[in-house]
Amino acid sequence: MNTVTQPLPDIIADGAAEAAVDAPRRARSVHDVAQVVHALVQGFASTAALRDLQGGSPKAQRDELRRSGLLALTIPSELGGLGAAWQPTLGVVRQMARVDSSVAHLFAFHHLMLATLRLFGRPEQWRPWHEHTARLDWFWGNALNPLDRRTVCRRLGGHFEFSGKKSFCSGATDSEMLIASAFAEDDDRLVVAALPSARSGITVLQDWDNIGQRQTDSGSVNFERVRIDEDEILRDPGPLTTPLACMRPLIAQLILVNIYIGIAEGAFEDAKHYTLRQAHPWQPGDGIEPDPYVLASFGEFFVGLEGVRVLGDRAGRMLDEALALGSALGTRDRGEVANAIAVAKVASTRTGLDICNRLFEVTGARSTHAGLGLDRHWRNLRTHTLHDPVQRKLKELGDWVLGERYPTPSFYS
Amino acid sequence: MNTVTQPLPDIIADGAAEAAVDAPRRARSVHDVAQVVHALVQGFASTAALRDLQGGSPKAQRDELRRSGLLALTIPSELGGLGAAWQPTLGVVRQMARVDSSVAHLFAFHHLMLATLRLFGRPEQWRPWHEHTARLDWFWGNALNPLDRRTVCRRLGGHFEFSGKKSFCSGATDSEMLIASAFAEDDDRLVVAALPSARSGITVLQDWDNIGQRQTDSGSVNFERVRIDEDEILRDPGPLTTPLACMRPLIAQLILVNIYIGIAEGAFEDAKHYTLRQAHPWQPGDGIEPDPYVLASFGEFFVGLEGVRVLGDRAGRMLDEALALGSALGTRDRGEVANAIAVAKVASTRTGLDICNRLFEVTGARSTHAGLGLDRHWRNLRTHTLHDPVQRKLKELGDWVLGERYPTPSFYS
Amino acid sequence: MNTVTQPLPDIIADGAAEAAVDAPRRARSVHDVAQVVHALVQGFASTAALRDLQGGSPKAQRDELRRSGLLALTIPSELGGLGAAWQPTLGVVRQMARVDSSVAHLFAFHHLMLATLRLFGRPEQWRPWHEHTARLDWFWGNALNPLDRRTVCRRLGGHFEFSGKKSFCSGATDSEMLIASAFAEDDDRLVVAALPSARSGITVLQDWDNIGQRQTDSGSVNFERVRIDEDEILRDPGPLTTPLACMRPLIAQLILVNIYIGIAEGAFEDAKHYTLRQAHPWQPGDGIEPDPYVLASFGEFFVGLEGVRVLGDRAGRMLDEALALGSALGTRDRGEVANAIAVAKVASTRTGLDICNRLFEVTGARSTHAGLGLDRHWRNLRTHTLHDPVQRKLKELGDWVLGERYPTPSFYS
Amino acid sequence: MNTVTQPLPDIIADGAAEAAVDAPRRARSVHDVAQVVHALVQGFASTAALRDLQGGSPKAQRDELRRSGLLALTIPSELGGLGAAWQPTLGVVRQMARVDSSVAHLFAFHHLMLATLRLFGRPEQWRPWHEHTARLDWFWGNALNPLDRRTVCRRLGGHFEFSGKKSFCSGATDSEMLIASAFAEDDDRLVVAALPSARSGITVLQDWDNIGQRQTDSGSVNFERVRIDEDEILRDPGPLTTPLACMRPLIAQLILVNIYIGIAEGAFEDAKHYTLRQAHPWQPGDGIEPDPYVLASFGEFFVGLEGVRVLGDRAGRMLDEALALGSALGTRDRGEVANAIAVAKVASTRTGLDICNRLFEVTGARSTHAGLGLDRHWRNLRTHTLHDPVQRKLKELGDWVLGERYPTPSFYS
Repeated sequence: MNTVTQPLPDIIADGAAEAAVDAPRRARSVHDVAQVVHALVQGFASTAALRDLQGGSPKAQRDELRRSGLLALTIPSELGGLGAAWQPTLGVVRQMARVDSSVAHLFAFHHLMLATLRLFGRPEQWRPWHEHTARLDWFWGNALNPLDRRTVCRRLGGHFEFSGKKSFCSGATDSEMLIASAFAEDDDRLVVAALPSARSGITVLQDWDNIGQRQTDSGSVNFERVRIDEDEILRDPGPLTTPLACMRPLIAQLILVNIYIGIAEGAFEDAKHYTLRQAHPWQPGDGIEPDPYVLASFGEFFVGLEGVRVLGDRAGRMLDEALALGSALGTRDRGEVANAIAVAKVASTRTGLDICNRLFEVTGARSTHAGLGLDRHWRNLRTHTLHDPVQRKLKELGDWVLGERYPTPSFYS
Repeated sequence: MNTVTQPLPDIIADGAAEAAVDAPRRARSVHDVAQVVHALVQGFASTAALRDLQGGSPKAQRDELRRSGLLALTIPSELGGLGAAWQPTLGVVRQMARVDSSVAHLFAFHHLMLATLRLFGRPEQWRPWHEHTARLDWFWGNALNPLDRRTVCRRLGGHFEFSGKKSFCSGATDSEMLIASAFAEDDDRLVVAALPSARSGITVLQDWDNIGQRQTDSGSVNFERVRIDEDEILRDPGPLTTPLACMRPLIAQLILVNIYIGIAEGAFEDAKHYTLRQAHPWQPGDGIEPDPYVLASFGEFFVGLEGVRVLGDRAGRMLDEALALGSALGTRDRGEVANAIAVAKVASTRTGLDICNRLFEVTGARSTHAGLGLDRHWRNLRTHTLHDPVQRKLKELGDWVLGERYPTPSFYS
Repeated sequence: MNTVTQPLPDIIADGAAEAAVDAPRRARSVHDVAQVVHALVQGFASTAALRDLQGGSPKAQRDELRRSGLLALTIPSELGGLGAAWQPTLGVVRQMARVDSSVAHLFAFHHLMLATLRLFGRPEQWRPWHEHTARLDWFWGNALNPLDRRTVCRRLGGHFEFSGKKSFCSGATDSEMLIASAFAEDDDRLVVAALPSARSGITVLQDWDNIGQRQTDSGSVNFERVRIDEDEILRDPGPLTTPLACMRPLIAQLILVNIYIGIAEGAFEDAKHYTLRQAHPWQPGDGIEPDPYVLASFGEFFVGLEGVRVLGDRAGRMLDEALALGSALGTRDRGEVANAIAVAKVASTRTGLDICNRLFEVTGARSTHAGLGLDRHWRNLRTHTLHDPVQRKLKELGDWVLGERYPTPSFYS
Repeated sequence: MNTVTQPLPDIIADGAAEAAVDAPRRARSVHDVAQVVHALVQGFASTAALRDLQGGSPKAQRDELRRSGLLALTIPSELGGLGAAWQPTLGVVRQMARVDSSVAHLFAFHHLMLATLRLFGRPEQWRPWHEHTARLDWFWGNALNPLDRRTVCRRLGGHFEFSGKKSFCSGATDSEMLIASAFAEDDDRLVVAALPSARSGITVLQDWDNIGQRQTDSGSVNFERVRIDEDEILRDPGPLTTPLACMRPLIAQLILVNIYIGIAEGAFEDAKHYTLRQAHPWQPGDGIEPDPYVLASFGEFFVGLEGVRVLGDRAGRMLDEALALGSALGTRDRGEVANAIAVAKVASTRTGLDICNRLFEVTGARSTHAGLGLDRHWRNLRTHTLHDPVQRKLKELGDWVLGERYPTPSFYS
């Protein structure tokens, strides 16, 4: 992962970029990213509450992402991409999650798939896939869920076949490419492959209907004797082999962290906006003494947000530094990043749920009107924070404290 | 309020009554109540998650309540009712709220309206209304919201006219009778009246669409020069006059408390059921060691529930004892009940929200499937606990601790 | 345990008894208890902060307890005692703990020793010991700690010898009688015996110097070939044999609960007193608007206290009802009491620590003056709540919720 | 404040410097600091628990600080000091606070006094004082407390006289110099002056005896017609005048934050050490399965600590950047630093109290032995976090969120 990456211009950080009249529709370099993201996010925001009610696939938003050029954000520039590092990419994810955590998830997991190709496969595999993705605006979907052992991989002479079902396949719908996993019939090892979503035998089911993250297309995929060629299998170095390959689940975890932070920020902004515009005609100097408990609650929300923001940012910087070590990355380097991400994950889970739950105590009874959709922040965060148990992270951190043992790499640690 | 009341048979308390084959469809005495409630609640439960999605008025459930005879639960037996005191009535409310907190609210507020007639009006007013209610299975709705000052009462010779709009009118839809309030045009005093819902000039709007308590019919009512006769006005003793009349808001608050407890109990039962049946094949002695964090979480939920149950029950007993004093009830008696209810309200708000939010941490990611509807507990409780700010109750209790000042009676204290 | 017991007069409950000029020095019937306790508690209060600094044995207070007649509080009246049940006795413990949780512990554990005689021994054993205790004002100490396995019991013909050390022996200092345990040399069974503290070979060490509960005399006892006669051994029914015998640890746990509640009440009262008298010249109507955050904190403390009080009282009533069943007591009866006590223990631990920790936030910086000794509440509670891990109780309650398994009886459950 | 400062070598940050045999006794440049601090801290640690019991002034430790050269840590190098910026200085404070939060406070407030001279006074005032301090190892004490209005300043021709008492004067005992404040007799303005502690009329009282921070010498100072010369008064720019002068209370607040963090770190380290060495023979691979609740608690402590460390560090960097602006510092610059410090203060208060309170739940009953002194962390933090109410900070942050109003500068904001 030692391809040159560069930070995005600072303007990303504060998200305050004004969308100029002549804002680019498509990012052709990192310098365009802030404006393109700003315009995209405004569009997502205008329909997010409605689309949360509808569920289903956010087809229009996915196509806007394709047109935006941002699907190439983490692709090296020599392969036609924008060459962004993870910390600025996660900044974009966070910005999207403020208004639409489903689309943010699809966007982030697309880039996780691109990283998976690099971390599990050979350069002659991932480089063409990255190049095609940048040129053709491919959207990658995830059919990797290693906890679902129903999909089997059988060797048939020079090729393989995947058969069986796979659940929690975020972004498989409307994708051009998939990363899928299966367990080998003979030795039960996990086989991970990249393949076109349109290949014969693949059926993407529209069976995702959950209380939150409703537009993440996280339903099931059915494989019926789907042919996989040898060079589509990511076996060198393969999944969770070297410390570098073991960075993949850390990227996934840090994506979750940034989506949690983004949801919490969105809830906070909505609460603030509602309080200022609808609950009270609050103006500096308007003579209305604000409720001291409302002030203190906003103070608490702010303290919580600032804490998780700095923890999330620190973990992002550490991730980029670790990836920059490439194959020199050691177990200890990986372990330090894992701890930093685990800390950020626990903190953002708790702080986020607190804000999403308590925001109504500052906005009051009328803010429960369904049209405002203020409950979707809690539903989205509550759903997404169950990805893997937060108690497991606490236990792992306790193991670190008492035994100086880093978390054992797995698809969740 | 010194009419003889009697406790319901103990069987109500544990809610474990088996619905016998020949269970009565209609309660004709307090001895029937347990079985009738049990059958009703089973019916409500089977459609509650679906009706939560649909919203609108639970017409079928309202009609079942009419046929059940339970709309006469708190009506004195000499007027054709079942003569139940409040504590057992609140037990029924809590049982209903476990499976359907919207219907529980409609049922409870119907009885609050009956109590309002007794506490604000003269015997020659409330006794016939109670008698008709018992005989004709009238359902009473609420258009009293005193915070909404848009409805005006104008005197026109020997009668009055109400004109204007009123929000948060729980149960007005599909009601036979309403209790409504307006502010007098001349002296701005609050006028409270009882009148048929079908009277000319009344329009009940279907404008309730909120994130929780979706079937409480809590929309707006429009009054267009609605005629009110002198004997329909509850002015002797009138609203919030004597300590006894000031018990009305306490009944309302304790209804809320029992709905909160019921919602929390329902969430707890659902979490337990899901964990035992779907998450794990949990059987004593099955050799699967349960997750220690899941066990401790259930332990915490149980500690919380037991605490709010005993606080709620204590407040219910104190309420009945205070009401039994009738006009001898003093400010201090009223204040003690107010404190007990405020304590139960704060505790049930916090414990309930904690359980409804954290239940997912024991049930896991798959329990976010929309078909299970496990989020409705949080949405219902979150919505209902905003009725009036819990921080206000804490402040009132602090005033009590430091100044031995009882809460100043209002429609919320 | 079916000897007739009677509740104490109500006056105990509110602790507001005024010490009349001619208040009895010694309780000769339950009717005297309130006044005697009131006078004792006032005396303890006046020196509690100082004695906390000094540590050591509260010899003067132990002698006052002897003279008060209260060491016979739970002894049946036909044996010369006051015949009080446990719930009112625990009320006395709670009152004492408000001002001096060390002396409260010594007093309560004395009565636990008396109950131990009844629950583990034969009537012809415990009745004379109770009678002597009532007549001679014996104080019983505890050398039972079954987790300390260093003391061995060897059979020597017709008698036995205890040899070894025993830690955490509350109240052994300055006691007339001890209950001690040892592990049998041959079959490793726990042997429990009652014996005079002055018996040859017993050395009570003054080695208790802890951060809290500093005057509980909870140091070590050394046994050097201490002779124990056959009829001093409590083996019929013996420790933790029948469900009734298994009530002993529940009494111990409920004593802890009431001490925790008493400490929390004392901390609350001190905070209130300081706020009213020293922090602010707080008078109703004095025109000083109280700090809204201070009010809300006091409101929260009050909500917490009310919750643990009702849970503690409920458990006390259930304990007395269960003991009244005598040998008819079944496993299920015992289990219900165990659950109620576990719930009260978790709640009082958490609520108490919260109050003792946060009280300073309402009293402010000046209240940290050492002379006020306001930190002793936290030190006492923090020490005492470590008796056995609260997490274990949560796990046991989780087992109950998911598996309907009652806690397995042990000396801690 | 635009004198050149430099960061300390990285070695400070991790505190892991080994004290070499030939470690310097006195820091003569920033390169010596890490080793000198390391040796000092080891010495402080060995007697901290005992000195906490004794109270009084830590004379020996103060003299070690004098000899260490660290009293010149923040003094510009051209004036004979070590020229350290605040962020590394606060790192030293945090290291000291891990083992002795009283001495850490004295050391930090000495440097706060030096900063006060620079921020409130003219270069021709503060430069000689700094130079003398560096050369003569002066220790500065604090008699500034502006909330105590008892000290009056009277003008007498060309000089002034201070008369009256001043409380909470940290470090006045055994100091060479004092910064003191008084209210002008004529116009009630706050007058701040620097003067020798030995001047006639000054009596430093030994009346500090509190539950925590027992060796901070924070007692009262009595002024009896103490002569103050014109050039000893810091009136140009004077207290809280320019945005730069208003940085003084922010430095004070950030010192508190770092002491809170240090105390929490010390408590955490003690808990870890005790758990590993005394509670359990914990070794990786020793076959003892650790308690899952203990692991999760340590995980929670670690998450909390990491959060407050990053918030504290961020605030420190912002402080140094702001001070580097010198007189160009604007209200907005100052406000941003104030917010960052307020966030860190709320978070470190809460996280620290949680760790200091709950550490016993992982170490267990035996860890309450007085000789271990594990309660001193809670007593120190509980005392110090009352310096000014944390609720005020929450309210100020709420004002910022809703009204974009920065905290109004005061001696506490």
